[in-house]
Amino acid sequence: MVNQSIKEINILRFKGRDASTVSDLLAVEEPLDIRLEYGPAGHRTVKNLSVTMRTPGTDEDLAAGFLFTEGIVQRASDIEGMRGFANTITVALSPDLAVDLQKLERHFYTSSSCGVCGKTSIDAVKTAAHCIFSGKGEDWAINPEVMYSLPDALRHAQDTFEATGGLHASALFDRAGRLLAAREDVGRHNALDKLIGHYFRQNALPLDQHILLLSGRASFELLQKAAMAGIRVVCAVGAPSSLAVETAEAFGIALIGFLREGRFNVYSNPECIAHQLV
Amino acid sequence: MVNQSIKEINILRFKGRDASTVSDLLAVEEPLDIRLEYGPAGHRTVKNLSVTMRTPGTDEDLAAGFLFTEGIVQRASDIEGMRGFANTITVALSPDLAVDLQKLERHFYTSSSCGVCGKTSIDAVKTAAHCIFSGKGEDWAINPEVMYSLPDALRHAQDTFEATGGLHASALFDRAGRLLAAREDVGRHNALDKLIGHYFRQNALPLDQHILLLSGRASFELLQKAAMAGIRVVCAVGAPSSLAVETAEAFGIALIGFLREGRFNVYSNPECIAHQLV
Repeated sequence: MVNQSIKEINILRFKGRDASTVSDLLAVEEPLDIRLEYGPAGHRTVKNLSVTMRTPGTDEDLAAGFLFTEGIVQRASDIEGMRGFANTITVALSPDLAVDLQKLERHFYTSSSCGVCGKTSIDAVKTAAHCIFSGKGEDWAINPEVMYSLPDALRHAQDTFEATGGLHASALFDRAGRLLAAREDVGRHNALDKLIGHYFRQNALPLDQHILLLSGRASFELLQKAAMAGIRVVCAVGAPSSLAVETAEAFGIALIGFLREGRFNVYSNPECIAHQLV
Repeated sequence: MVNQSIKEINILRFKGRDASTVSDLLAVEEPLDIRLEYGPAGHRTVKNLSVTMRTPGTDEDLAAGFLFTEGIVQRASDIEGMRGFANTITVALSPDLAVDLQKLERHFYTSSSCGVCGKTSIDAVKTAAHCIFSGKGEDWAINPEVMYSLPDALRHAQDTFEATGGLHASALFDRAGRLLAAREDVGRHNALDKLIGHYFRQNALPLDQHILLLSGRASFELLQKAAMAGIRVVCAVGAPSSLAVETAEAFGIALIGFLREGRFNVYSNPECIAHQLV
């Protein structure tokens, strides 16, 4: 059975000093372009409403729920029909529905994560980012013990999380695993923007001799920001998405996931970590 | 010492059958309105760029990092200065910087979570949502044992997460704790939109006789969506933010956090859960 929510890839799994190649499953992340068709019969207009990064599967429910929770439709009959193609869904509103054009304007936006597929999303980042790593990373060859030490170092630095349990964190380390700075926020993208902004204001970018640790999962948006800042090694305590892995590959970033309890997985550029296959 | 990242409130803490009033710390979530000032001297323009929900503290780093990772500025000297007031920060770009107006257009958006403070954000939801619960919820008086059973029920239903460890989930239960539907996504807001969209399409809203379980933390955005769908009881496996609690209070929603391992905290409308104080 094909499950479009899951993608299978080969990764390198570390446990203690051992590394082995295993098959792993990723949650799929792909953009969905939501479009609205509205207006009286004979005078229909189609307008892009929003692009959201989502896991494919139930796009009709997602589009309908989004339009409802954003206050654009009130009842099922406000939607006449929906048609989907690839990563685009067009919601045809009832011709009788008075559409608040100002409300649409308010929602009408695109962002740098736009694109009708993952590849175009990555290409959009490439046009803005200056730093694509070309080497394989053998010169890094980080000792796995350094990797295992990072989450503890972040936990010690994460004051507010200790108190509230409610904050995401981003932390920057040097190649020897020394913590240089950590930032927290309710939004994971904000924690990373705060960290990158701190170095940006000192003209200290790119961070190509550094290791980034994310307290949660790794999404496309976080890899996009890491790529913009020229970060070579990105580690996450949680799982990466499919598009995060593809973005890391496109920029030559080493992406590590599930870094906790003496284990981690390497999803791209494994040469950055010293290892011998068992 | 005043820490603007943390807010202290009184909550009801359940452990087994015991409930006690304790003081708890919340991560603060408030909107930040980022504005750009640009153009040659004598012809400066100010434009709203973005509103993001963030934890206050290092807004200059956040704004600079956001502008850099979105490709609007390239080096520290592109920013002439920044001035902040309440939840607004205005970034003055260098008069020499050629600003790509089209790129600004691309980023120029506001969303329903807009507002210069948490209160205006909540007020914006109130104008769109129809359902504000007026009673205290004594008629609910859910048995705490029902609450404790919810995370296990969700875990059993969460197929893709089991496989990838990479998905957020939203699940709907009836008052007896029976699982009715669950949806997963890489984005927590998408998982909830999918769930609400499923019921919206059946004209089955509001969900005022139901319990919602979120697999992670509870943010303003998730409470906003729950309020739109008229959900009475919202539970999260993780922590709620300050603005999530304020939104729950404004709509009469019972908000439960840290629901795991035989414990949970009640942040608003505790009458919805049967309890005797110890």
